[in-house]
Amino acid sequence: MRFLSEDKVYEMLDAAGLPVLKHKVFHSYDKIDWDLFPAVVKPLFEKPVHKTEMNAVFECLDKKELLKTISVITKRFPDIDNFIVEEKLHGIEVFLTLKRDSSFGFVAGFGTGGFWVEFLKDVVFVPNSATKSQIIQALHKTKLFKLLTGYRNVKGNIELFVDFVLKFLKIPEKYPELMEVEINPLFVSENFVLPADGKGFTGDILFRNRKKTSYIDPGLFFPERIAVIGASKKRDSVGYAVLKNLSSFTGKIFPVNPKYDEIHGKRCFPSISSIPGKVDCAVIAIPACLVPEVLKECGEKGVKLAVIISAGFGERGEEGKTLEKRIRKISEKFDIRILGPNTLGFIIPSIRLNASFSKIMPEKGDVAFISQSGAIITAVLDKAVEKDFGFSSVFSLGNQLDISVTSLLSSLSTRRENKIFIVYVEEVKDGYLLFPILKRNPVIFIKAGKSSEGKKATYSHTGALAGDYRVFKDIVTIEGGIVVDSIDEALECSRVLSCYGRLKGNRAVVITNAGGFGALLADYLSNYGFSLVDIASIKDKLDSFLPEGWSHINPVDILGDATSLRYEKTFEVMENLDWDVVFVVVTPQYMTDIHSIAREIVEFHKRVKKPVFPCFIGGYSIKNGIEYVERNNIPAFDEPLFMVKIASFLKVEPC
Amino acid sequence: MRFLSEDKVYEMLDAAGLPVLKHKVFHSYDKIDWDLFPAVVKPLFEKPVHKTEMNAVFECLDKKELLKTISVITKRFPDIDNFIVEEKLHGIEVFLTLKRDSSFGFVAGFGTGGFWVEFLKDVVFVPNSATKSQIIQALHKTKLFKLLTGYRNVKGNIELFVDFVLKFLKIPEKYPELMEVEINPLFVSENFVLPADGKGFTGDILFRNRKKTSYIDPGLFFPERIAVIGASKKRDSVGYAVLKNLSSFTGKIFPVNPKYDEIHGKRCFPSISSIPGKVDCAVIAIPACLVPEVLKECGEKGVKLAVIISAGFGERGEEGKTLEKRIRKISEKFDIRILGPNTLGFIIPSIRLNASFSKIMPEKGDVAFISQSGAIITAVLDKAVEKDFGFSSVFSLGNQLDISVTSLLSSLSTRRENKIFIVYVEEVKDGYLLFPILKRNPVIFIKAGKSSEGKKATYSHTGALAGDYRVFKDIVTIEGGIVVDSIDEALECSRVLSCYGRLKGNRAVVITNAGGFGALLADYLSNYGFSLVDIASIKDKLDSFLPEGWSHINPVDILGDATSLRYEKTFEVMENLDWDVVFVVVTPQYMTDIHSIAREIVEFHKRVKKPVFPCFIGGYSIKNGIEYVERNNIPAFDEPLFMVKIASFLKVEPC
Repeated sequence: MRFLSEDKVYEMLDAAGLPVLKHKVFHSYDKIDWDLFPAVVKPLFEKPVHKTEMNAVFECLDKKELLKTISVITKRFPDIDNFIVEEKLHGIEVFLTLKRDSSFGFVAGFGTGGFWVEFLKDVVFVPNSATKSQIIQALHKTKLFKLLTGYRNVKGNIELFVDFVLKFLKIPEKYPELMEVEINPLFVSENFVLPADGKGFTGDILFRNRKKTSYIDPGLFFPERIAVIGASKKRDSVGYAVLKNLSSFTGKIFPVNPKYDEIHGKRCFPSISSIPGKVDCAVIAIPACLVPEVLKECGEKGVKLAVIISAGFGERGEEGKTLEKRIRKISEKFDIRILGPNTLGFIIPSIRLNASFSKIMPEKGDVAFISQSGAIITAVLDKAVEKDFGFSSVFSLGNQLDISVTSLLSSLSTRRENKIFIVYVEEVKDGYLLFPILKRNPVIFIKAGKSSEGKKATYSHTGALAGDYRVFKDIVTIEGGIVVDSIDEALECSRVLSCYGRLKGNRAVVITNAGGFGALLADYLSNYGFSLVDIASIKDKLDSFLPEGWSHINPVDILGDATSLRYEKTFEVMENLDWDVVFVVVTPQYMTDIHSIAREIVEFHKRVKKPVFPCFIGGYSIKNGIEYVERNNIPAFDEPLFMVKIASFLKVEPC
Repeated sequence: MRFLSEDKVYEMLDAAGLPVLKHKVFHSYDKIDWDLFPAVVKPLFEKPVHKTEMNAVFECLDKKELLKTISVITKRFPDIDNFIVEEKLHGIEVFLTLKRDSSFGFVAGFGTGGFWVEFLKDVVFVPNSATKSQIIQALHKTKLFKLLTGYRNVKGNIELFVDFVLKFLKIPEKYPELMEVEINPLFVSENFVLPADGKGFTGDILFRNRKKTSYIDPGLFFPERIAVIGASKKRDSVGYAVLKNLSSFTGKIFPVNPKYDEIHGKRCFPSISSIPGKVDCAVIAIPACLVPEVLKECGEKGVKLAVIISAGFGERGEEGKTLEKRIRKISEKFDIRILGPNTLGFIIPSIRLNASFSKIMPEKGDVAFISQSGAIITAVLDKAVEKDFGFSSVFSLGNQLDISVTSLLSSLSTRRENKIFIVYVEEVKDGYLLFPILKRNPVIFIKAGKSSEGKKATYSHTGALAGDYRVFKDIVTIEGGIVVDSIDEALECSRVLSCYGRLKGNRAVVITNAGGFGALLADYLSNYGFSLVDIASIKDKLDSFLPEGWSHINPVDILGDATSLRYEKTFEVMENLDWDVVFVVVTPQYMTDIHSIAREIVEFHKRVKKPVFPCFIGGYSIKNGIEYVERNNIPAFDEPLFMVKIASFLKVEPC
């Protein structure tokens, strides 16, 4: 890595067509030829340092002071030969950086800068490909936005700033060797955007030619004939589990194990080559060291997809990595696609195909679930069966030797039955390949590695090195993806997405028969970025039938004695108001006819065709309400805070 | 309200024994007698203004500049006659305020100040009675703490700052007419703490004599003979519901209604005075306008507790408020304590007493639930029955005409069966009366009114004006209370408190059979202020029996094929480590023996006697694990994010 000093950064910015402040570099024996004052003078360090903390930034009001300052600097920093003198600027101090990210290639980050940069941690990231509107959208998430739009007696020019960022993002086109460049401060005023300090690093060119997604034919996951290599009669072995799980499959299964002639009445073959006819897919559950040879046999047999369940590869150190390399070579030679190694396998409920060692076959649904952790799949499937939650397909990625999260998403998204994706990831390698998919399909991510602690944990897990969580979340969100915090949130988001899609905006109405929950919901909504629609225009209409004590504001508290009739009339009035989402709270009070209210909610939704989120709060009394709306394809909630958080994930980001 | 200008604030600080910077006030025709430079000069405004934004703060390097500046000021602010000249200070700019809060009386708030105060919104509140250690504890929650302990090239003296705050809190003793005083900036350096600007307001003296809690004999809530005034045969009336709900009561019930001779075979009395013998408690469910007269009769009969269920009082405007005043007078005259009006009533499960119109009688338990919203009670009771959740008592406060949340808490906390309190509030009137209770009993608050939207909603609900949520949360927390966001969080916190009490610290261990959940938990724990204990000292012991692929760090991933034996051995090793809480994740993998693992968790907890939080993630497969640990008085979870959030509420705050 080579260090770029401040003047070199200015050169680079200038070459990229970006404005730089007036500056000049002097050697200690040069004649000081500078007459723009006030000026700033700094020693020109050849390694990264914190100039302000070192007291190495000097202001000079005139030439005499400048000369004196330079002699002070010479004494204080005897190793330094060069100085940079520049004009003194005023404006909002912004932090702007460009760096190579292990997932997304070049990304830019910006936020409040200057002295406060590490204190505020106010930064948002955008991808190399960001458009003007994406940059503005990202800016909205920063505190810097508040400064630029006017705070106390300062203001900045957003238009100029965004243009600067757009050009800044183009730097790697000319400087592909760039690793990182950081400008702090970048002065933004109402009239100019000018960097007043910068440093950077260059390194080897890596990202010049971005990989394309390697195409995976989704038909591979619909095999007709499957070999189970390592099939076994031992009840506690993976080979036993896989064979048993495959018994429901509508196609043909061939157990392979030289130790047996038959398993559970099925003929067992000594090797894959001894199976008569073609084999589309091989599920491999044998010790790691034997895998390369078997894979070669698979290749010779014309197998197109190998599911390597065996563990003991890259996640177990150098020896395993060598094995992985051998496998990669064989797979390339024979054009076999590899799922795993160290995978739980995959499941396609529509064809009753369970090529995994999870014993659960979920219902058919419209959600594809892809996970880098096999154990998470097992837990989720167990949960899904209890909740009648269906999947279109379930994939355990394992070590992603060949089939990666991006290539698999790309392949599966071409099939109509995969409407929504849930993806658990610890590391994403070619993140930029996600962008076209995120624009096409709703993809919900759960990503581990948020904390530094989390990073340690993911490092040891599946041998993956977690990328930067913040970069991931910012960039995936801006490209149209959804990033949630937990599995339950992911499942719930997919349920709502499948009914309503994304929310068009953040204007909310709350209707409740419990004022207390109305007050709490108002808090939750404000916290999660919703606004409560003003109901002034419909107040008279509501007044005409609601009892005197109703809230008269939104949250609309229609009081504890509300029956379905009062809900129905309130819904009717709400049809005349402009909103993006209605939250309906139903609690079991003395007169509450839960089932009829549920029916009114369904009717209301049919008429308005906009998202209605019912929240039934209680125990046994509310069950039939929940069941009724869910039977009618409306997702029900039983806890208002969780409901609002889920809704917030589904909002389309402001722009 | 009278405005206090900067010099008046300094006078006040000086009188309170606080240091002030060198300063002097000059009239425009005064001789300028000042020779400490650099100096700052400001016009002395007689009303609150934003001096920096008005460009009304001037720095002067010498006397000449000072005189010139004053003439500039005179021209720019022709209405101003006085100037304040003061020494120029350097240091960390802190914001410090003291204000009368409607709940807690005088409270102080502090955080990062100067230009950034409204931008950062970095403020924490402490009560008037705060001790040194409470102030330090509060300081820990601010970003200011990072600045004071040393950030880049600045640092402040925490000792000096805390002493300043302590004296600052004493100001109202001498100046009880103070409404609010705000110092911004207060300069804090390593050697001094000095205010460099200030403003304030005075008003009427209100808080000089704090009220004491009016003592309520808890015996009142264990009556023997109860009259139901407004008892009715009409199935949709409250009078019918209350009478029906009271039928399980172990004591005597007397229906009162001049319209009937009997109701459901029980003799009905025309008036309370016609009941033979004494009556301890009257439940009143008649139109509001009739209540005063009936209450008078109750007084004459010697009734000690009146539960006024009737609505239509303070929450319905002026007329209702007049009725409330009449009721208060009567209750004072006859010494009747009033629950309500506009209350749902109260329930004491141990004596099968349901003096409310909620049809549900919950199980007996050790949690007392007090709510300002009746509708929330109904929903919670419904939920509680489903979840086998018990209560020691349940109270709906209504309009708190007499029995308030503080007086009720104080009364109930003297009875042993009320071990833990859950309190839903929108407004707390005499918040400082809570402090001794919070130190004695675990009290969990859910408070509405966080958002301005929320405030509007609470204003219209129960006629209450919500106090400042932030002040409430900061002060209740620092005094030992717990403030949660939702009802579900409150119930869950009470469940864990009843098993474990508070967590002694934040040092956590995670043991999991699913690495993915380990990685997610690491993120959650870091986000909620836990630290993962270093396991270096026990690594060898774990290595001796765990398979090679285990995580080797905390979260301790003991891998998907872990059986109860592996959990058991891992638990044994954990006994040699110092930690405050262990989180155990169990997911249903192929070999997982859920029930035996649950048994090991129970045994582990018996041995260590420290908090163990098991999280069983899945569906049907994990049910028996949850049931087993809960039967053994260990609270189980099924969602790790929720588990960590709950644990975070129960941490004792750092100090």
